[in-house]
Amino acid sequence: MKDEKKKFTTTSDIEIKELYLPQDEFNYDEKLGNPGEYPFTRGIYPTMYRGRLWTMRQYAGFGTSRETNLRYKYLLSQGQTGLSVAFDLPTQIGYDSDDEIAQSEVGKVGVSISTIDDMDELFDGIPLNEISTSMTINSTATILLAMYVAVAEKRGIDRKVLRGTVQNDILKEYIARGTYIFPPEPSLRLTGDLIEWCAKEIPKWNGISISGYHIREAGSNAVQEVAFTLLDGIEYVKLLINRGLDVDFFAKGLSFFFASHNNFFEEIAKFRASRRMWAKIMKEKFKAKNPESMMLRFHTQTGGVTLTSIEPMNNIIRVTLQALAAVLGGTQSLHTNSFDEALSLPTEESVRIALRTQQIIAYESGVTDSVDPLGGSYFIESMTNEIEKRAFEIIDRIENMGGMKKAILLGIPQNEILESAYKYQKEVEEGERIIVGKNKFRVEEDKEIKRFKVNEKVLQERVEKLEYFRKNRDFNETSTSLKILKENAKTDANLMPYILDAVKKKATLGEIIKELKDVFGEYDVNITL
Amino acid sequence: MKDEKKKFTTTSDIEIKELYLPQDEFNYDEKLGNPGEYPFTRGIYPTMYRGRLWTMRQYAGFGTSRETNLRYKYLLSQGQTGLSVAFDLPTQIGYDSDDEIAQSEVGKVGVSISTIDDMDELFDGIPLNEISTSMTINSTATILLAMYVAVAEKRGIDRKVLRGTVQNDILKEYIARGTYIFPPEPSLRLTGDLIEWCAKEIPKWNGISISGYHIREAGSNAVQEVAFTLLDGIEYVKLLINRGLDVDFFAKGLSFFFASHNNFFEEIAKFRASRRMWAKIMKEKFKAKNPESMMLRFHTQTGGVTLTSIEPMNNIIRVTLQALAAVLGGTQSLHTNSFDEALSLPTEESVRIALRTQQIIAYESGVTDSVDPLGGSYFIESMTNEIEKRAFEIIDRIENMGGMKKAILLGIPQNEILESAYKYQKEVEEGERIIVGKNKFRVEEDKEIKRFKVNEKVLQERVEKLEYFRKNRDFNETSTSLKILKENAKTDANLMPYILDAVKKKATLGEIIKELKDVFGEYDVNITL
Repeated sequence: MKDEKKKFTTTSDIEIKELYLPQDEFNYDEKLGNPGEYPFTRGIYPTMYRGRLWTMRQYAGFGTSRETNLRYKYLLSQGQTGLSVAFDLPTQIGYDSDDEIAQSEVGKVGVSISTIDDMDELFDGIPLNEISTSMTINSTATILLAMYVAVAEKRGIDRKVLRGTVQNDILKEYIARGTYIFPPEPSLRLTGDLIEWCAKEIPKWNGISISGYHIREAGSNAVQEVAFTLLDGIEYVKLLINRGLDVDFFAKGLSFFFASHNNFFEEIAKFRASRRMWAKIMKEKFKAKNPESMMLRFHTQTGGVTLTSIEPMNNIIRVTLQALAAVLGGTQSLHTNSFDEALSLPTEESVRIALRTQQIIAYESGVTDSVDPLGGSYFIESMTNEIEKRAFEIIDRIENMGGMKKAILLGIPQNEILESAYKYQKEVEEGERIIVGKNKFRVEEDKEIKRFKVNEKVLQERVEKLEYFRKNRDFNETSTSLKILKENAKTDANLMPYILDAVKKKATLGEIIKELKDVFGEYDVNITL
Repeated sequence: MKDEKKKFTTTSDIEIKELYLPQDEFNYDEKLGNPGEYPFTRGIYPTMYRGRLWTMRQYAGFGTSRETNLRYKYLLSQGQTGLSVAFDLPTQIGYDSDDEIAQSEVGKVGVSISTIDDMDELFDGIPLNEISTSMTINSTATILLAMYVAVAEKRGIDRKVLRGTVQNDILKEYIARGTYIFPPEPSLRLTGDLIEWCAKEIPKWNGISISGYHIREAGSNAVQEVAFTLLDGIEYVKLLINRGLDVDFFAKGLSFFFASHNNFFEEIAKFRASRRMWAKIMKEKFKAKNPESMMLRFHTQTGGVTLTSIEPMNNIIRVTLQALAAVLGGTQSLHTNSFDEALSLPTEESVRIALRTQQIIAYESGVTDSVDPLGGSYFIESMTNEIEKRAFEIIDRIENMGGMKKAILLGIPQNEILESAYKYQKEVEEGERIIVGKNKFRVEEDKEIKRFKVNEKVLQERVEKLEYFRKNRDFNETSTSLKILKENAKTDANLMPYILDAVKKKATLGEIIKELKDVFGEYDVNITL
């Protein structure tokens, strides 16, 4: 059978040559360096997975804290090594679950959390001093993190030992994801408050996860994913330096989050290029001195948009390949999509298979036995160089026109992502990009698979619970704490301590956000974009 | 979470270093060379999968020819690009399906074929001049190939255009698989007759598939798989040279068959090392002149013994990794196991997923876009060298003691494989080798999956059909052809033409084997091993 391909290009339109040969001018120390050493192309740790595997961290959450807590315990019993909280949409955009605006979305795409008590129940029986927890939360990140810290302290755990990450990447919300509340300036202030507070108060916590994932899922190619993500990172570093902070004080709390899509070697090269680029940026542009400040540490999620609802079991194959690319690229943490995620929230069975994918790669395949096993491959090194070159071209262009914040306000990355998405879609429609079972080898008949259903009584349970919560608090204390928060929002103060105090005084998420809206206003995208 | 591993070794006990670095004395032309050029480390064709993908060839067969024919048509409709026939045990060891000895096994592990008419029905509606067909058949290979050629000629197809492979590798039957009939000498004579006849009569057909697969499945490690398989190959080359044939006349009809197991990089390196080794052997030991004679072309099957019956969907993950290793190793043809193969014959759904595994790798992952994409990787090249070195040590040892035929008669490879299998089993029991879901992350509860069931009326249908076949032939013609075959078996003549004549004269498989047994005798393993 003849291969029907005429063009051999990656998602980023990088032309792939038939054959790659040793490069004459290849300088090992400059281009690669040993793992654990600048520029960290081969990995950020000298021993990588021989010393410690990546954290196996399935993003999960639905319905109430009680239900999600059961899922977390199931995942831990199956060998998962970290937690990752999916919040529902109301929680993400600052509405309590009994708010009328929120009701159709309560518990749908994630767990509903409005109060410190909800957070307590979410982690019931889970040792917060041992587990590392990631929270996908952005405009309300300060509040959810405050609740997490408050619960830990209530349990007598020193906040200094807490390990985890909050996404807290508001720029990519304006670019691609959409769950912003306030205008960019106060949003960025909260982002900065959180990062700074973490660096001071919970030093093992990553105050941000600078996220290329949603940029990629919105349709960007691999090079754009790297460039726009690192540009966002540059913006955050500038923000913190402008507060008078030393780069080496906060930089090791900056973490990253990338997607792993189908083009196997482009993805591996993307991870390696990103590490080398960030190291250079931190060292040369921001004059970091501590090698830890130059290390790009990242979480990876396999590519949601690459999954098909037709022949869903084929997704197990895709996820395996994408997960392997992430591991060969040196990820620190990994979420593998469940095969039914294109159809519904994952069932226990599908999420178990997703976790087994990581475990089989970790424990059966042997790929963790040596560090950066693909290092030196003529093709991989060439692709790594090419991605670096092209991504730096985008970075230089945006930096020269005034930086990422300005570019986002002008809609530049948004438009460039749209163009890529359109091009990809056209290639799929014309059969130049193949999706097996969809535009090639298509079989019409398809059998039903078991879909996960969220408990229909979630909303009722949530409303009753919040009613009870509000009745059983000292409202004077609550409202005082809210007032203090509001007053400080009008100043330059770091708001994290006041938010932490408010959640401890039983202010709800929606109440806190309302106070902040009074000061910051709301952002209407149509005004500027 | 700490990685619990203390030892970092491959299945072949090759110690894996933490870090691989550029090798100072690395000579590209000597060690690698470009694809399509000696020593073919980077692949046998200059353009590899850019020019043409591997053949997607699922091994399949069960029940009657009619049922198996429907499965073949299903597979072709799903995009499979080659056929691979699984025969039942009676067919493999020379009994007609109405023979009393055979009855409990008729149609069980493969299709039951006793006559030219069965073969005709097996390929009903399938264009034998276009498809390539592989037949897993050894002691009775001459007869089944004769039937295939006879059916093609009956359809007016010139035998010269036929493309495919017969396994015809009798040595590995004595080592590992067990479906021999005659003593080694006459067995090898038939093997030689078939290869020689193919070289002369059906030049596009591979007269042998020298098989490491069963050696590996029996418990050998990767290095032993390479060494014993190439040693078998050396024995066949000697056999044919001893007949006075020129090595360049028959060598391009020799093909190989390897397993792809779990240890990802060891497997890739194994395929690359095998190519380099066979090229050296053919050039230096056997003085081949034609580069085609030096090319190791191989089929791959993912590792049956690596699958688990517990949590069978996990096998999709294993098969994906193993299939990727085969493709990155440059296979010419691939069978991907179905996830339920540890439980039963595959269903239509499970075999479709297995085929989709190949298609997703071929059409979505982009790994086919450049040739030998891992070439140059410090780790891969080092592992390739190490496997070559260790496998040549075994080859030299066996060659120095008189060669593989003698070693097999002494039980040497059999014992060495047993030792490896025992060592592996011990490592699994002690938890040093991990099987996810089995000796780690074990979950007791498991749900039923749909198992494939062979039609219970197979035997009855087969007996009736054979009765009809025997009634409706000219028995004088049949018995004359059998007599001529028997007379020639007593001489040095190539038996293929007489076997071809006998199947055309409607002799059955069992009748032909009976004549040959009268001359050759039967082999009792207990006498010599």
